[in-house]
Amino acid sequence: MAFLNENYLKLKTGYLFPEIGRRIKEYEVANPGKKIIRMGIGDVTQPLVPSVVKAFREAVEEMGEISTFKGYGPEQGYEFLRQAILDYEFKTSGVKINIDEIFISDGSKCDTGNIIDILGRNNRIAISDPVYPVYVDSNVMDGRTNNLLENGYYEGIVYMPCKEENNFLPQIPIEKVDVIYLCFPNNPTGMAITKSELKKWVDYANENNSIILYDAAYEAYITDPSLPHSIFEIENARKVAIEFRSFSKTAGFTGTRCAYTIIPKDLMAFDQKGHSFQLNPLWLRRQTTKFNGVSYPVQKAAAAIYSNQGRKEILEVIKYYLENASIMSENFSKLGYKVYGGKNAPYIWVKTKNNMKSWDFFDLLLNEANIVGTPGSGFGPSGEGYIRFSSFAKMENVLEAMERLKKI
Amino acid sequence: MAFLNENYLKLKTGYLFPEIGRRIKEYEVANPGKKIIRMGIGDVTQPLVPSVVKAFREAVEEMGEISTFKGYGPEQGYEFLRQAILDYEFKTSGVKINIDEIFISDGSKCDTGNIIDILGRNNRIAISDPVYPVYVDSNVMDGRTNNLLENGYYEGIVYMPCKEENNFLPQIPIEKVDVIYLCFPNNPTGMAITKSELKKWVDYANENNSIILYDAAYEAYITDPSLPHSIFEIENARKVAIEFRSFSKTAGFTGTRCAYTIIPKDLMAFDQKGHSFQLNPLWLRRQTTKFNGVSYPVQKAAAAIYSNQGRKEILEVIKYYLENASIMSENFSKLGYKVYGGKNAPYIWVKTKNNMKSWDFFDLLLNEANIVGTPGSGFGPSGEGYIRFSSFAKMENVLEAMERLKKI
Repeated sequence: MAFLNENYLKLKTGYLFPEIGRRIKEYEVANPGKKIIRMGIGDVTQPLVPSVVKAFREAVEEMGEISTFKGYGPEQGYEFLRQAILDYEFKTSGVKINIDEIFISDGSKCDTGNIIDILGRNNRIAISDPVYPVYVDSNVMDGRTNNLLENGYYEGIVYMPCKEENNFLPQIPIEKVDVIYLCFPNNPTGMAITKSELKKWVDYANENNSIILYDAAYEAYITDPSLPHSIFEIENARKVAIEFRSFSKTAGFTGTRCAYTIIPKDLMAFDQKGHSFQLNPLWLRRQTTKFNGVSYPVQKAAAAIYSNQGRKEILEVIKYYLENASIMSENFSKLGYKVYGGKNAPYIWVKTKNNMKSWDFFDLLLNEANIVGTPGSGFGPSGEGYIRFSSFAKMENVLEAMERLKKI
Repeated sequence: MAFLNENYLKLKTGYLFPEIGRRIKEYEVANPGKKIIRMGIGDVTQPLVPSVVKAFREAVEEMGEISTFKGYGPEQGYEFLRQAILDYEFKTSGVKINIDEIFISDGSKCDTGNIIDILGRNNRIAISDPVYPVYVDSNVMDGRTNNLLENGYYEGIVYMPCKEENNFLPQIPIEKVDVIYLCFPNNPTGMAITKSELKKWVDYANENNSIILYDAAYEAYITDPSLPHSIFEIENARKVAIEFRSFSKTAGFTGTRCAYTIIPKDLMAFDQKGHSFQLNPLWLRRQTTKFNGVSYPVQKAAAAIYSNQGRKEILEVIKYYLENASIMSENFSKLGYKVYGGKNAPYIWVKTKNNMKSWDFFDLLLNEANIVGTPGSGFGPSGEGYIRFSSFAKMENVLEAMERLKKI
């Protein structure tokens, strides 16, 4: 008799975005012809830039000629892309990363979800609240938690609430933790972390032989030059951190699929007897066994953002989205809302007025202004009373949404 | 203190293909200028066909225009591709599959490796020997085995030896098994299965509530019209089977990356209390949490093989590879070798003479004829004394290799 993985039965039903979709559809059916402006889901709207399209197309042509055709590529990614990443993302900022510490993948969702494959099930896991749901759900599926409690937390995870009073920065937990998920600039709060704050975590991890899983998917949106783009800008982070980066929000690759993960060779984990092992070769083994590399034309497309022209083009797009964020921040602030994020991130995190619940505010905005945000409570209990707006929208729609907002 | 997943330490070191690469390199250094003909790794050599390149290129252009740009697609794959698969792969052969039973992915290696995520760790797993290493290794990594034994088997897996005496067909094990991996046409032996033989497995699975993980990556190479392309051609298979299909060998997608997996809604697995649950929504949950869909242009490229012209073009390529297989089979046979496979598969499985060991024959061929095959023992203990040749080579090289062979 074949058994299922019963941990899946512990998962909360009704995932956030399907529920949003359901409410929008219900509204549309009752109110046909209304133009709904979606600023909820964090999906980009601007097309691939010309340099990327050109490289992508050329690589497709290569695949059609026997002399330039490419079969299986290296599971870890082509050297041309890993070298470009090294040169442009790290060497310029003085961060020491080696080419065999970079793993190209088809998305940070996969990497942040799969990374626990190489970690023991007995690790104590710390996760921020609110949070990108993948960190929690992948741990639930893998049997690293007990059941969902009434307060919305899974038993077995150490949650780190991020609220106004701590400026949305996770605080080091009292009980010892082995694996810590951090995401900066943050999804959903849009808040960034300073070097000195991040150093506290790196120091903690070094003192406790813990590992930090650092999601830097939004680093391209950092505007403040004092803020770290990579955890490896912090001293001794190579011994304790894995970093996730993505082309999704950097270069509009949400539908094209390419990302990368950095696992330094200095990073060790332990067996039950206390012997230490490098995680880098374990991840390589995981990827060579369960993954077959990213599509060659996609890797060529990604590498194009590191040409001078490609760089210029993607920076223009990022500027466009940041301007959207700034328009939204300003307008919500003017209307008396407390607004966080949006300066070094594509997300703004708006506090509702009079302790209104997230979903109530969602319904109000949908019904009265036909604007869609993402209820903060969907990201975890500490997100209650907030709503997330994404700047990945067309600017004319953002402007129209702000006009409508004034009339509520 | 962060712990690693200690199951990784149980894995056999020295993966097959790196070892082959090492020996080739060593030979090349000692014998510079020799032309080595590689018929070892199962990677295609013919380029993408024109219809695929055209669709791929057009989709890339779409990604560069704001009006046609695509962001996140459905994790399960675009409907246009799933519908095309349904119409061309299944409806024509009368197999009943629904569109929401098809999951597009970036490769069968990922799917066959990840599928156990949704299955309980207490399942008794049956695996053929010799076998595609991913089935075994993914189970080892996930802690479903004990240590590697001296005979090359992992404790905890039920192995099904496939040898000459059983015509390389796995036999139903004496002890009850819950999850059974089958691959037909087979990698590495190149042998196919008849409907009546496959029916025995489907009946067994129905009687025992077992699940068959059916890898049909090579079904496009079947030439005998009486053989099943899909396990779902067998009555009642919908209740017990998951099928894996790939565009890698069908349409030269090894470097382009696209595949699909079929999980019928009739397929159930059980919890410890004996309650049954559909696996289809569990896999959907797994994929929506840990995967973000296949690159849009790649899906458009894949769909192009279902146009009339695309179909014609890929069938030409498959014919070319099958001709290679036939040339190899004939020549090895003429030289007195026993040869299996190659008629309904791109692989031939050659028995060495005088009980020569696989690696010794590998070395002999490399040193005396500069030909590379894959040692059968690398696929499991029952592969000892065999070598696998792949027909994914340029025909002129195959012909040259056969000439060289005669001179040994």
